[in-house]
Amino acid sequence: MSDQRPVGVLDSGLGGITVVREITRLMPQERIVYLGDTARGPYGCKSDELTRKCSLECAGFLLSQDIKMLVIASNTVTAVALELIRDLCRDIPVIGTIRSGAYTNAIYILEPGMKVFSKECSLLIPVAEEGTGNSDIARAIAQYYLYELVDSGIDCLILGCSHYPLLLEVFQDVVSSRIELIDCALWTAVEMQGMLEVLDARFAGDAGGLAQNYFYVTDPAPVVRKNAGLFSGGLIKELKTVSIDQLTK
Amino acid sequence: MSDQRPVGVLDSGLGGITVVREITRLMPQERIVYLGDTARGPYGCKSDELTRKCSLECAGFLLSQDIKMLVIASNTVTAVALELIRDLCRDIPVIGTIRSGAYTNAIYILEPGMKVFSKECSLLIPVAEEGTGNSDIARAIAQYYLYELVDSGIDCLILGCSHYPLLLEVFQDVVSSRIELIDCALWTAVEMQGMLEVLDARFAGDAGGLAQNYFYVTDPAPVVRKNAGLFSGGLIKELKTVSIDQLTK
Repeated sequence: MSDQRPVGVLDSGLGGITVVREITRLMPQERIVYLGDTARGPYGCKSDELTRKCSLECAGFLLSQDIKMLVIASNTVTAVALELIRDLCRDIPVIGTIRSGAYTNAIYILEPGMKVFSKECSLLIPVAEEGTGNSDIARAIAQYYLYELVDSGIDCLILGCSHYPLLLEVFQDVVSSRIELIDCALWTAVEMQGMLEVLDARFAGDAGGLAQNYFYVTDPAPVVRKNAGLFSGGLIKELKTVSIDQLTK
Repeated sequence: MSDQRPVGVLDSGLGGITVVREITRLMPQERIVYLGDTARGPYGCKSDELTRKCSLECAGFLLSQDIKMLVIASNTVTAVALELIRDLCRDIPVIGTIRSGAYTNAIYILEPGMKVFSKECSLLIPVAEEGTGNSDIARAIAQYYLYELVDSGIDCLILGCSHYPLLLEVFQDVVSSRIELIDCALWTAVEMQGMLEVLDARFAGDAGGLAQNYFYVTDPAPVVRKNAGLFSGGLIKELKTVSIDQLTK
């Protein structure tokens, strides 16, 4: 059986476009409806209560677009609102990005003897958003954060934020080439593919590519338009707006 | 004549607390009502239209607190909404932070032969907010931005953002000690003092200090509480909340 309906992707901003790129690379025929809550994001500096309210309103909008699955591309939303969004979306599957700390737990379950080191690299998000992804200052900041990890003798580095794929070159420059980089945007796309196959809900038809997708934001500020181009590699042609008033109606 | 009413201070976040500190240093007896729109800020990445809507709602709340003057502590709000806020606050004076580019124009008017170089240092805002203000990475980022300016032989550096006073030590380390640092939070407080004196509206009474001031935010997220302590030097004891629903009622 085939399900022609689109997949919804929810984020507080534009970082989730890196997840869309991986989905489109793995499953070019699937259609996407993306919503980035740029009027109220980033959620990282908001209270859990406000993040829950905003994410539920965004999930409600995506549900109204007749989606067959919802992908949460924000770690913050996954951490504080995944269960509430699942309650709201009773008839379709919801998958989240991997939560902070969940990497470590999952690895210990699979391989109890493995050593895991983790490091929050908060300044790398504005670096990616400034479009300074491949610059000396990005390299200096990445080096500052990763020095200890590299020194601990790691052989694999998990990039646990949807902004980090924009900094791949920088990470590769900073860590030795024997260290494998694992991208969480790709993991999320792989999880989605697996679930669509289990449900027998893949789209059967011609590949549409990014041109057949819809990208909505709640505020189309100039920096949002610029970053939509940057994060999608120039592939987003039209950015649609849905206002907060429309979301909460 | 004396005017016992408080002064309103409006910001999209907590950076404006550096302006409150300067006001309190210069005029310890004046009372302040501060509102930081943390539920919808930072405004820097929002459209002008949304910034105008949000700032007018915030100004309306401060007006309802019976203020004698409104200080806009955000460059973004000053740039896009100063005139609209003046229209709203017809009976009281409104002063803004100095707009981007306005420094250069003002200097050319006063001293036409002077050379002015300017540099946007956008990554320094998250550096200040991360509380990494006095660290190696802050110094590396400041150096990256200021290298060219210092190399141009400047003898004075204007810190044109309300977050920069939190990075004073770093700036002083990076630029030579013969370069004078000028802080825009202090300038704003000086302008306010001058205007209150012209209007004969200074508060006549005992100095209350920061304890007599009210600090409101629209979302009391944990990082907001942490930064309120950081930005005020631990002087804010209570952070009050006014929700967006209350603002727009």
